Amino acid sequence: MEQDIIFYTNPYSRGGIVHWMLEELGMPYQIEYLAYGKSMKAPEYLVINPMGKVPAIKHGEVVVTEAAAICAYLADAFPEAHLAPALSERGDYYRWLFFVAGPLEASFGLRTCGIEMTPEQQMQLGCGLPEQVLDVLADAVRGRQYIAGERFSAADVYVGSHIGWGMQFGTIDKRPEFVTYWQGLEQRPAHRRSMEQIEAAMARFPFPGA
Amino acid sequence: MEQDIIFYTNPYSRGGIVHWMLEELGMPYQIEYLAYGKSMKAPEYLVINPMGKVPAIKHGEVVVTEAAAICAYLADAFPEAHLAPALSERGDYYRWLFFVAGPLEASFGLRTCGIEMTPEQQMQLGCGLPEQVLDVLADAVRGRQYIAGERFSAADVYVGSHIGWGMQFGTIDKRPEFVTYWQGLEQRPAHRRSMEQIEAAMARFPFPGA
Ligand SMILES: N[C@@H](CCC(=O)N[C@@H](CS)C(=O)NCC(=O)O)C(=O)O
Ligand SMILES: N[C@@H](CCC(=O)N[C@@H](CS)C(=O)NCC(=O)O)C(=O)O
Repeated sequence: MEQDIIFYTNPYSRGGIVHWMLEELGMPYQIEYLAYGKSMKAPEYLVINPMGKVPAIKHGEVVVTEAAAICAYLADAFPEAHLAPALSERGDYYRWLFFVAGPLEASFGLRTCGIEMTPEQQMQLGCGLPEQVLDVLADAVRGRQYIAGERFSAADVYVGSHIGWGMQFGTIDKRPEFVTYWQGLEQRPAHRRSMEQIEAAMARFPFPGA
Repeated sequence: MEQDIIFYTNPYSRGGIVHWMLEELGMPYQIEYLAYGKSMKAPEYLVINPMGKVPAIKHGEVVVTEAAAICAYLADAFPEAHLAPALSERGDYYRWLFFVAGPLEASFGLRTCGIEMTPEQQMQLGCGLPEQVLDVLADAVRGRQYIAGERFSAADVYVGSHIGWGMQFGTIDKRPEFVTYWQGLEQRPAHRRSMEQIEAAMARFPFPGA
């Protein structure tokens, strides 16, 4: 028997990553929109994600949080969608999923907080400077349609979302490598469907705290 | 034909995580010790990891960086070692791998840099406060021998290493949940073998820059 997927999100959030992933998957799912600072911090939701953050999913009795983890989980739970490489070919797949979830997120967080890391901090912290992280990521996507192997995977959903949004919001420069890679992804029907739904939700909840 | 595993590390580094993982795997591997600021930044190594950081591995022609990615990769590439759950049961596995690689690393990095996040930054950044991250992680390991399902997995290597070292270096409080979880892991023969090798390497390279 198929198990329900419940998707917890807010249209102004990293939930967009998972929204796209769910559309790629092609399985039915139910969306629960949560409001910042309100239903996201309500006891019912803290049982799902004790961080009080979105996205999260519940698939049957399984709860998964962390956008990258949700992408990797769904790809494996629904192998018929072919959104993860074979078990023996997952080097680049995991490498870039964790690179973006780890060093990219961390170095951007430090930049947002106005930190200029000392050389010693760059050595000790797991991320290095944002510019260096972006140089490495640009190298990884240069001349490639997909980030892991010859076919589209959940890693493209996750890495591509960060690159696409980063360029849109100005946190990532529009380097030619990023522009070309993102152009190959953003017109995918599943991505467009997710964007339509997100935009419709934004129209209903016209500001993030709604 | 079996392919060689080359493991790039430094005894004073997150490479210890992968060292333990390789011992759990039980496959032969070759170690290359790299020095901070020197061989880690040499052109030959930047081809392997353009961040100039350890750990990294090369398995045949596959290069993997990021400690968590290496653990996940090796578990999948060597299924006979049973270090990853079945594909359909990977919710907690990915959730906690990415939680530690993402929010835990990021929030600790901000703390190291002396940042006290504003409420708005806590909402926007992917991590939240270090104390909150640790509360959530303590909940996740409370009363559990393993973090994902009923058996030991690569997620225990990764999450356990962070908890064990964090308590040793004072970045993580010795909460009873962490102490109990770590006690169930640190005496594993593979962990002890990796520690013996790391200590022997430390004796040969008596300070991190060596
Ligand atoms: N590391 C998490 C980050 C999740 C996150 O920080 N989500 C933000 C929106 S993009 C949120 O829910 N913030 C609400 C809050 O912290 O109160 C992931 O990658 O999924
Ligand atoms: N995100 C990486 C972090 C790797 C990392 O920062 N390693 C440190 C040692 S623990 C390093 O090699 N630093 C040397 C440098 O940055 O020059 C991972 O999890 O593997």
